[in-house]
Amino acid sequence: MTDVNPGLEPVRKALQDLSIEDNPAIVKQKSRDFFWYSPVLKKQLDRVTGDLVVTPRTEDEVIRVLKACFEHDVPVTVRGAGTGNYGQAMPLAGGVVLNLAELNKIKEIGPGRVVCEAGALISAIDDATRPGGQELRLHPSTYRTATIGGFIAGGSGGIGSIRWGGLRDLGNVISARVITMEAEPRILDMTGADLAKVLHAYGTNGVITEVEMPLTAAYDWVDVIAGFDTFMDAARFADALGMQDGILLKELGVISAPIPHDYFLRHRKYLRPDQSVCVMMVAPFAMPALAAFAEHRKADLVYRADTAEADEKKGLPPVFELSWNHTTLRGLRVDSTITYLQILYPYPDQMKKVDAMTKLFGDELPGHLEFVRFDGNVTCFGLPVVRYTSDERLEEIIRLHEEAGCPVFNPHRYTLEEGGMKQTDEQQLAFKRESDPKGLLNPGKMIAWDDPDFDFSADGPFLFQGLR
Amino acid sequence: MTDVNPGLEPVRKALQDLSIEDNPAIVKQKSRDFFWYSPVLKKQLDRVTGDLVVTPRTEDEVIRVLKACFEHDVPVTVRGAGTGNYGQAMPLAGGVVLNLAELNKIKEIGPGRVVCEAGALISAIDDATRPGGQELRLHPSTYRTATIGGFIAGGSGGIGSIRWGGLRDLGNVISARVITMEAEPRILDMTGADLAKVLHAYGTNGVITEVEMPLTAAYDWVDVIAGFDTFMDAARFADALGMQDGILLKELGVISAPIPHDYFLRHRKYLRPDQSVCVMMVAPFAMPALAAFAEHRKADLVYRADTAEADEKKGLPPVFELSWNHTTLRGLRVDSTITYLQILYPYPDQMKKVDAMTKLFGDELPGHLEFVRFDGNVTCFGLPVVRYTSDERLEEIIRLHEEAGCPVFNPHRYTLEEGGMKQTDEQQLAFKRESDPKGLLNPGKMIAWDDPDFDFSADGPFLFQGLR
Repeated sequence: MTDVNPGLEPVRKALQDLSIEDNPAIVKQKSRDFFWYSPVLKKQLDRVTGDLVVTPRTEDEVIRVLKACFEHDVPVTVRGAGTGNYGQAMPLAGGVVLNLAELNKIKEIGPGRVVCEAGALISAIDDATRPGGQELRLHPSTYRTATIGGFIAGGSGGIGSIRWGGLRDLGNVISARVITMEAEPRILDMTGADLAKVLHAYGTNGVITEVEMPLTAAYDWVDVIAGFDTFMDAARFADALGMQDGILLKELGVISAPIPHDYFLRHRKYLRPDQSVCVMMVAPFAMPALAAFAEHRKADLVYRADTAEADEKKGLPPVFELSWNHTTLRGLRVDSTITYLQILYPYPDQMKKVDAMTKLFGDELPGHLEFVRFDGNVTCFGLPVVRYTSDERLEEIIRLHEEAGCPVFNPHRYTLEEGGMKQTDEQQLAFKRESDPKGLLNPGKMIAWDDPDFDFSADGPFLFQGLR
Repeated sequence: MTDVNPGLEPVRKALQDLSIEDNPAIVKQKSRDFFWYSPVLKKQLDRVTGDLVVTPRTEDEVIRVLKACFEHDVPVTVRGAGTGNYGQAMPLAGGVVLNLAELNKIKEIGPGRVVCEAGALISAIDDATRPGGQELRLHPSTYRTATIGGFIAGGSGGIGSIRWGGLRDLGNVISARVITMEAEPRILDMTGADLAKVLHAYGTNGVITEVEMPLTAAYDWVDVIAGFDTFMDAARFADALGMQDGILLKELGVISAPIPHDYFLRHRKYLRPDQSVCVMMVAPFAMPALAAFAEHRKADLVYRADTAEADEKKGLPPVFELSWNHTTLRGLRVDSTITYLQILYPYPDQMKKVDAMTKLFGDELPGHLEFVRFDGNVTCFGLPVVRYTSDERLEEIIRLHEEAGCPVFNPHRYTLEEGGMKQTDEQQLAFKRESDPKGLLNPGKMIAWDDPDFDFSADGPFLFQGLR
């Protein structure tokens, strides 16, 4: 690093009684997320690091950090557990990494709701609410390590979305406390439609310190795996199962052969190499209905946790750790050259589109679907494994999907726009003008702020000047 | 009654230690349901009565009744609380009315499930499960009086169907204990796909004595009423709200002006005569999201229980008693000449079809929609008020709906087929052959049993010979 930010020293001094880390190796480690799932981001972001990691323990300490950094023009990038895959928490312009891991109190639990600080682990929230028979509606596959604030600021949905839709849907976050990046930081309580200003904004326009989340009934979800001769058989089974309003599921995913056998090492004994699977989390009392549905559709339940021996279950990860981006993670452990995509197959033609893409790409993109409710309908995202050969081919694969009417949420881009809807979120931009007038929060992630005239249809990604 | 069934006396003798009622006035009262919502059924069924009412207190007593009646060829019509509208519980051939009201024990409550006897009141089940934070998924608007067995054998869905679909959906009933009508009655435990044999079979092929039902999280649901200038504005609001996966609702109905003002007497103060309404039951923690959604859609929340004064709420019925067939009931109390229909507006054209029917019939059929999940999609049933003029016009109204692609579940017919899908349910018929070889259970309700060649396309209803 050659251009040392002159504000760093005064910031360090102002915050000297806080928990501050400046050991470069540790700071670099705390500046990373799971961007390296993407060979493209790996090249672009591998050297990115902050200058200091500050770990506040209270909201007052958060405010002190923001105030000091505002005064001295030091960028601040908020971090939960760093389990994002889009470089969400990577400090492109250096400065302070604001690590919220210790702002993690669970403050209040009521019927259908929990209030907790942003750094609370998602699994810790469930541990606190389960004795009362409640749990969070939604969680990522990184359930055991991710924070609730990181999920809300950087994620969109996951396990539970087959029932509840995504985080962006009204009602899936009740309220959030947001601190602005100003000379005198304001504390805003956001609810209803206002939440869209800060959800999935990567912390570019405010620091979420506390959230109120809806809870739902907690059950001892039964892990189930069904095996199929073809990927499309598995996909059609899941597509029909997702439409069963009475069968309570928390997860419904489909993974094409040979991925399950090749990458799910501890489940391999249940699977043939040529078998595609549907993975499910099923409410215990829904198992008779699920079994009836599977029998009717001639699906072979190769594993069900409710009838498995305790010994047998002991060595197995939960099926949610075979799903969403854990599918990719398990693949990367076996073959570090693969990567993935995130695709939406819009309702009502999702099966036709999945079939067409499966035929087009064959084993270059072994299929992986995650079924969700999306705008009130049941459809699926695709998170196929990509047998990566070059950036050019990856771009072509993306283009072919989009030309076929399957929008790609490109996980090989670190900006909100390119990883999302390829357009400016005017509401988030307008809020950033109010809440972060100096543009110090997570710089380089909102193209609309840095380059309002950026042409999304042009070739090539947005390149943030701060990427050193 | 002239043809006295010679089996009655031996049956009475065999069951003399049971609770038996033969006072004709009481027997007649216990032979009736809410068939009189229909002017057609009123004419046909008004004189229908059983001969004896037997009220067993245990399953063993049920078996004794069935055994005795089988031996002596006495018909048996099972009855819950008699809140059906299709004459489900009316004993067309006389004989024994098997009143299950005292077979009402709640036997077991676990996470997500309750086991109870068929005669348990739905509200009593919820009273027992609510202290543990659980309640039934679905209930009819006759929540306070209906039994769970009656709901399952004679109903199809209701409050809660916007979340869970209908009773016929796999998983919405976990299991049922069914007693057959044979020389030696068998006890069958039915689960999964088998349940379709006895659900909504009006007790024509077995006596359900016990059920296991799924439970869901119980909340203090907030009654909300939104007012609109037109029926279609209200309908489009509800149609969009039903697609909000994150806003937890238990009820979502729409009722056209002038019905709310004219018939909802205790809510009249909140309503203009020309106002159509959307009635909702909303989870308390979803109220900020609901309010945001309403504001965005410019809906006027004329009543919300969470901000109403205690005094104000005291005199008001719950909104579920403005919905489903309680809408009709409130209408009948004000104007006994009205009746109603039950229509399905199939997804995805439900709004277009509702609009077309609204334009076609105007104030002859003030609109009433109930939004539900149906085969995985959100759509609506219509239960319009019908300003009845003649049977012929009623038939014409039904025909016009069916010609427009809106199937009618005709509540002016007492048979399973005519009130349902206008076709034989082969599975229920096959099961009746096994379980009721003499055809003694609720005679006259399954056309396929009595007249396999009945022509559903011909004019006029099926006329059961036993109708005296």
